[in-house]
Amino acid sequence: MDPQKTGFDYSTFNPSYFQHLEQRIKDLDALGIQADLILFHPYDSWGFARMGQAMDKHYIQYIVARLASYKNIWWSLANEYDLMAQLGQKPLSAWDFIGKTVHQEDPSGHLLSIHNFYDPPVHKGTTKNWFDYTKPWITHLSIQSDNVFFVPKWLDDFQKPIIFDECRYEGNIEFGWGDNSAKGMVDSFYRIVLRGGYATHGETYIDKPNTTRPIWWAHGGILRGESQKRITYLKQLLATNGFNYVNPMAVQGPHWELAVGESPDKQHVFAYIGDNQPEFEIFDFLPKDNIYSAQVIDTWNMTSTKLNERIDKNHYFHIPRKPYQAILLTKIN
Amino acid sequence: MDPQKTGFDYSTFNPSYFQHLEQRIKDLDALGIQADLILFHPYDSWGFARMGQAMDKHYIQYIVARLASYKNIWWSLANEYDLMAQLGQKPLSAWDFIGKTVHQEDPSGHLLSIHNFYDPPVHKGTTKNWFDYTKPWITHLSIQSDNVFFVPKWLDDFQKPIIFDECRYEGNIEFGWGDNSAKGMVDSFYRIVLRGGYATHGETYIDKPNTTRPIWWAHGGILRGESQKRITYLKQLLATNGFNYVNPMAVQGPHWELAVGESPDKQHVFAYIGDNQPEFEIFDFLPKDNIYSAQVIDTWNMTSTKLNERIDKNHYFHIPRKPYQAILLTKIN
Repeated sequence: MDPQKTGFDYSTFNPSYFQHLEQRIKDLDALGIQADLILFHPYDSWGFARMGQAMDKHYIQYIVARLASYKNIWWSLANEYDLMAQLGQKPLSAWDFIGKTVHQEDPSGHLLSIHNFYDPPVHKGTTKNWFDYTKPWITHLSIQSDNVFFVPKWLDDFQKPIIFDECRYEGNIEFGWGDNSAKGMVDSFYRIVLRGGYATHGETYIDKPNTTRPIWWAHGGILRGESQKRITYLKQLLATNGFNYVNPMAVQGPHWELAVGESPDKQHVFAYIGDNQPEFEIFDFLPKDNIYSAQVIDTWNMTSTKLNERIDKNHYFHIPRKPYQAILLTKIN
Repeated sequence: MDPQKTGFDYSTFNPSYFQHLEQRIKDLDALGIQADLILFHPYDSWGFARMGQAMDKHYIQYIVARLASYKNIWWSLANEYDLMAQLGQKPLSAWDFIGKTVHQEDPSGHLLSIHNFYDPPVHKGTTKNWFDYTKPWITHLSIQSDNVFFVPKWLDDFQKPIIFDECRYEGNIEFGWGDNSAKGMVDSFYRIVLRGGYATHGETYIDKPNTTRPIWWAHGGILRGESQKRITYLKQLLATNGFNYVNPMAVQGPHWELAVGESPDKQHVFAYIGDNQPEFEIFDFLPKDNIYSAQVIDTWNMTSTKLNERIDKNHYFHIPRKPYQAILLTKIN
């Protein structure tokens, strides 16, 4: 879309539009929700993806001035910024200026990132299309990927928080990114979070193809899926066991079956087994001399059962063979 | 283990040992089984991994001369050859000579490859530790990986058959490579095979840790798992529908949910949906103008149900939401 032909005057703002946007950001804040505001995206029918640097700056100065006072604002420079380059909308070289401008204009230093396109045959084995997240004005990684294994490596590489903004959606549509099952979604959350990352949830259930009813992410409202309850249960388990954040453990060696994290106070270790089926384990990655009590967490049925064994780094212990379990350890010595 | 201290005389062979080995290879042939004979490996208590080039050559000349006449012999230069370098047993530079020697000594040109070590945190996102499979004396790729997505890319890169010799095992032990569920194992087989690769099956069920009873791969015999029946069913479906080999399809674009292959005669397309849950599909990767009838394959329950729709590249169709299904198309025009 040629910006000259859309009928939009990019130099003049429509205050009532932005007042409406402010109200919606306030609504989210009242619900306890952070608003990760996307400033540019490639799905553009109005020319906003091709305004050019001068108008981009004008737009950013206006929007940051209006919205930086809201405490629940995060800045996302773009959704799928690299696709915008592929589509000839905005070159890869444009983003450093945009990011620096947001950073300089925002007196409150809100969280700031940029989000990548993802096509597994091209991107599953590489991070080459990611933005350079080492830039000092970027506060965290905002990743689209279903490749949830490498969080500890990426934490080590980038030394910044990692958020999977799109790790697939629970839904029933014809695309890989939107047909994850509830069990698959919960599985991704445990694997991401217990290896030290963060994830966002969304739904893409729809009644039929080419429907006039848009998917949940376009309108919000009631969640119809089954994963959100289990994600809430995980959140509660983390909150009540001192996991203000998660330090990944067991990231080397043959423990492929596990995603493991330790609480910052080192009193708890949370090991997710998922759809693997070991019947005995040895947690040889535990700190020497530590002894723990254990609960078996059924992540799907949201139950916790005491395991009648003391766990340490030296001894095998038995676990029932059942999918989607986790072991939550509490230090007792 | 220092070869000088093991008590073995590497220059003199024990014919009765090799006669025994020949009998076992004959036994396998009588059962219709290929014997992928591993010539070196890093789990060595006898010094055979450190004999040096002269004795390696002597050993290879003897074993190839003895065994090349068996029609079911494949040569695997090593299990986990790169781990042998890490352990100081045999440098990476040793293998080209070994491989060329096998190739030159074998008058029958049996299949010949070499097998890599795999530690997901290091190797899941890279193939850097793979041997250079472009070497002309290598007939196929012999891969250890649970990363079963990239078969079409690797087929394109190497232009040789790709065998996942270890894509994990169905079992219940404490290691990621040996605790796959039956459903996970069947899932890996469909994903590998319908994207154009080959896979081997094995079991690692064991009754308890540190047991005196070795796992199946060490003794063979009765399979106790549930995946082997479904893998046999897949094999039958392939054989009866013209899939002498599989040409991967739908390897670009948003069809993450599928693993799809076409039969060489182009009369059949086999699309695996797995644990994804689309309720409608559009197979926009099908050849233009082709029309197909369809069966829904329940890969776990091993049933086939006719789908009362004609499938082509232009129209959506409905499928029931159920895990581990596949769609088998038969061309009707």
